[in-house]
Amino acid sequence: MLTVLRIGHRPQRDKRITTHVALVARAFGADGLVLVGDDPAIASAVDGVAERFGGDFQVTAVKGYRRSMKEWDGPVVHLTMYGEQLDDVVDSLRGKDVMIVVGAEKVPGDVYELSDHNIAVGNQPHSEVAALAVFLDRLFKGKELEKDFDGPMKVVPSARGKVVVEK
Amino acid sequence: MLTVLRIGHRPQRDKRITTHVALVARAFGADGLVLVGDDPAIASAVDGVAERFGGDFQVTAVKGYRRSMKEWDGPVVHLTMYGEQLDDVVDSLRGKDVMIVVGAEKVPGDVYELSDHNIAVGNQPHSEVAALAVFLDRLFKGKELEKDFDGPMKVVPSARGKVVVEK
Repeated sequence: MLTVLRIGHRPQRDKRITTHVALVARAFGADGLVLVGDDPAIASAVDGVAERFGGDFQVTAVKGYRRSMKEWDGPVVHLTMYGEQLDDVVDSLRGKDVMIVVGAEKVPGDVYELSDHNIAVGNQPHSEVAALAVFLDRLFKGKELEKDFDGPMKVVPSARGKVVVEK
Repeated sequence: MLTVLRIGHRPQRDKRITTHVALVARAFGADGLVLVGDDPAIASAVDGVAERFGGDFQVTAVKGYRRSMKEWDGPVVHLTMYGEQLDDVVDSLRGKDVMIVVGAEKVPGDVYELSDHNIAVGNQPHSEVAALAVFLDRLFKGKELEKDFDGPMKVVPSARGKVVVEK
């Protein structure tokens, strides 16, 4: 079981970035997204993708992050540019139930303490969307991209144009 | 020389996503971003990061994508969920000057034709930010995350909290 916990979401400002976080979580093999705060637009966007392309990815909403982090039964990792290097930690996480905490611009200090690991995907500022994708890609050693979502629509890899098979 | 060409940017809607694209390009080892359209906010955001954290990443603006793609001296690759699988192509690109084309939601049909390769980072819908990060991570085999940007500020990887060394 792999869940992404999205904290710091501001509906006015972060709608598209959080949607990208959710779609990356789904496409790169996580089972669900827990969104701290209330923004039905995120679940709606992801459900629209899942209806067409399959899978059973779930978006749920919670009021605060602390309880979710404390109650998670498995390693809680927080992705941050200040953390330990990904390759130093990732091997120890394989096969476990991992909660991956992904912040927006400002992350409260206790998130660093409530996490079992603070992990950096490079120590430069970039993007939580990218950090999540590369984390999951390394965790699953690239195999996540071969997952069959068994949806009504399926893209067939193609050198030119778009080839989509519909069931 | 590795350049990212960002097409389809709408300043009202895409400011934050395009900023993430630019920061990922910088952090994952590209030399610059060419932005189709005019939005000084993107260069400004990236320059702010580079002033603190170093490197010589450049953001430039052009009016259209066609000329940039046609005049590029090296492989032009377009990242799209409809493309060939990344692992089938990436080995052939190493050590070359690559232009990486990253679209927003709607990509004009001729982008597929003007590109030498249309490459998918998984065939599920997700995020151009994630696609770019994973593409560069595979291209550089993870070594890009070890790059020293030699900036005034440097993050020291840390299990807890934030450790930043200032020159």
